[in-house]
Amino acid sequence: MPPAVPPPVDPVALTADLIRCASVTPAEGGALQLLEGLLTEAGFTCTRVDRDGIANLYARWGAKGANRSFGFNGHTDVVPVGDAGAWTHDPFGGEIVDGVLWGRGATDMKSGVAAFAAAAVDFVRDTPPDGAVILAITGDEEGDAEHGTVALLDWMAAQGERMTHCLVGEPTCPNVMGEMMKIGRRGSMTCWFTATGVQGHSAYPHRAKNPMSALVKLLARLEENPLDEGTDHFDASTLAITTIDCGNPATNVIPAKGRATVNIRFNDAHSGASLTDWLHHHAQAVQAETGVQIDLRLQISGESFLTPPGTFSDLIARAVTAETGVTPAYSTSGGTSDARFVKNHCPVVEFGLVGKTMHQVDERIEVAQIQQLKAIYTRILTEYFA
Amino acid sequence: MPPAVPPPVDPVALTADLIRCASVTPAEGGALQLLEGLLTEAGFTCTRVDRDGIANLYARWGAKGANRSFGFNGHTDVVPVGDAGAWTHDPFGGEIVDGVLWGRGATDMKSGVAAFAAAAVDFVRDTPPDGAVILAITGDEEGDAEHGTVALLDWMAAQGERMTHCLVGEPTCPNVMGEMMKIGRRGSMTCWFTATGVQGHSAYPHRAKNPMSALVKLLARLEENPLDEGTDHFDASTLAITTIDCGNPATNVIPAKGRATVNIRFNDAHSGASLTDWLHHHAQAVQAETGVQIDLRLQISGESFLTPPGTFSDLIARAVTAETGVTPAYSTSGGTSDARFVKNHCPVVEFGLVGKTMHQVDERIEVAQIQQLKAIYTRILTEYFA
Ligand SMILES: [Zn+2]
Ligand SMILES: [Zn+2]
Repeated sequence: MPPAVPPPVDPVALTADLIRCASVTPAEGGALQLLEGLLTEAGFTCTRVDRDGIANLYARWGAKGANRSFGFNGHTDVVPVGDAGAWTHDPFGGEIVDGVLWGRGATDMKSGVAAFAAAAVDFVRDTPPDGAVILAITGDEEGDAEHGTVALLDWMAAQGERMTHCLVGEPTCPNVMGEMMKIGRRGSMTCWFTATGVQGHSAYPHRAKNPMSALVKLLARLEENPLDEGTDHFDASTLAITTIDCGNPATNVIPAKGRATVNIRFNDAHSGASLTDWLHHHAQAVQAETGVQIDLRLQISGESFLTPPGTFSDLIARAVTAETGVTPAYSTSGGTSDARFVKNHCPVVEFGLVGKTMHQVDERIEVAQIQQLKAIYTRILTEYFA
Repeated sequence: MPPAVPPPVDPVALTADLIRCASVTPAEGGALQLLEGLLTEAGFTCTRVDRDGIANLYARWGAKGANRSFGFNGHTDVVPVGDAGAWTHDPFGGEIVDGVLWGRGATDMKSGVAAFAAAAVDFVRDTPPDGAVILAITGDEEGDAEHGTVALLDWMAAQGERMTHCLVGEPTCPNVMGEMMKIGRRGSMTCWFTATGVQGHSAYPHRAKNPMSALVKLLARLEENPLDEGTDHFDASTLAITTIDCGNPATNVIPAKGRATVNIRFNDAHSGASLTDWLHHHAQAVQAETGVQIDLRLQISGESFLTPPGTFSDLIARAVTAETGVTPAYSTSGGTSDARFVKNHCPVVEFGLVGKTMHQVDERIEVAQIQQLKAIYTRILTEYFA
């Protein structure tokens, strides 16, 4: 009697099981434990790379120094449920009704993690590759992301662990399964300006130094010309004034202090450093002209990154088309993702299912999409190691 | 035995008596009653022109239709004492110590009212003029001034009462008695802007309509060019941004609404109406360019006015110089006063003593200045009717 062949891993059941783990950031909720059990049993070497109370899981099948090491990256943490009473189904119930799976994380991104875990387990068992398959899964993507994928990459560097290419399984399709993958993302930074002048009477502006005038002058200049007109693979960079505040109720008083905040989303024509210079340059010019002191506090949430279209992205696109009949666009739109960290390690591309209901009440996904996603990921592994 | 000649009215004692009347706006406090008694006894026809709970006093010596009617305007109401415990002397005590009279209203402007009342009473008795002497005294200058001098002027117009020239007795000298008179004042107006756009995500400014960008654009244009370079008798008009507010704490959100306030002090090159047009013009242009709705709320606190230097102002200046040895500058500086209302009735000039401590704790004045002021006012009356 031949040994019993284990059945393929059902990515839908696995997603539902993961949804039942209430892993709202930073809670692990049992999600990574569940995956660790599954992967260990399938022959993966699993390491919990926890840091500062955040749980992360590193799993490798195959040799550490392999020439070809395909990596998947994703997260099991989810955003809070919001108005719990407004949900049609238990957000942590993992209920399937008429072919739709309901719950927090159904699209973002327990389905993605389940799909690549299921694909990886079946793939290494059915067609053991000449190389390594790596899963780097974090419990901190929706939070500060300080101790999530960054911690995994830090640990990998220290251990000599390496992915040669990485696919991030975040939802990337706006409406139709297969229509979009991401080959880059714009960077993001925020600047908080504080303008300190000299208070005075409205009737004698020349005796005062008006911080609001200085901020208006500065912000008008920042908005005067677009940062760029877009680049080969990116939309134009954008700058948005998100608030200006002073709180002076007296119309006969020029205030001493005011504040303003701008948020910049930038493409590969810029970097956090070049924009920091640009902001300082304009602030210093206005300070010199007005005598109002302008202080800057800067936070660079992520640099822009681009994995230029080529062999790797084409491989992903071919797999998507083969399984869905849809040709994915190569996009760099959207907010940030952990790909901004992975890009420092190896070429990275993002592909996942339709993210329409992510972060919303009644987050849900058609189970067929999860099955399709597993099939796509399996095909990618197959072609990658062919 | 000839009839007893009454002694001259002592303006210092009268000021002290007025200070003892606690006439904090809108309280009458007995101040106008005191003056009404004095003036009635001296042969003035007195009428209380009260409106909406505010007390005002109109007093005329001489015929109603006189060709020459010299008017004095002033107020007996005072601002609150502020920190009562911080006063060296009872703010309502009218104490005189070492030649200095202490109390709320000592400079602004019970002393001015006492000086012109004393001058008027003695003048009409000693050298009865061919004309009329009018005192228009209000109990509402420090408040909203809606039912003060305006009520007096309304009533005068209805009654056919008329001043041919008017002197406002507010303190006008910055440091030295006699150094400055006012022949005009800049106007003042405030504009509250509300910008209503469309909220959105910071990463996609083109899908939102940013009210803060619209306000920055608008305010930058308002500040770009000076309103004017000054006119013959006025400093340049000024515009001051007094506040900008939004209150959006989320750096990834473009807010839906923002507010800004500007205060404009304008000379005779403008009017409240012309500046209203100017503000609407720019707001509409920015609204058209940005799609952000910009609403304006406007308050014109006072139009600018000018009594061009000439016979009347020269007469005042000569009297000041004769009594003090100082040549007064013809100024249009400072905030608003009731002269902004009187200017619609007849030529008006302002002269009074040193206003250094007005509105402050320990408001006080040298008694010699009050006596000098009475002498100046007496000389003005004498020359006016000569
Ligand atoms: Zn996600
Ligand atoms: Zn006053």
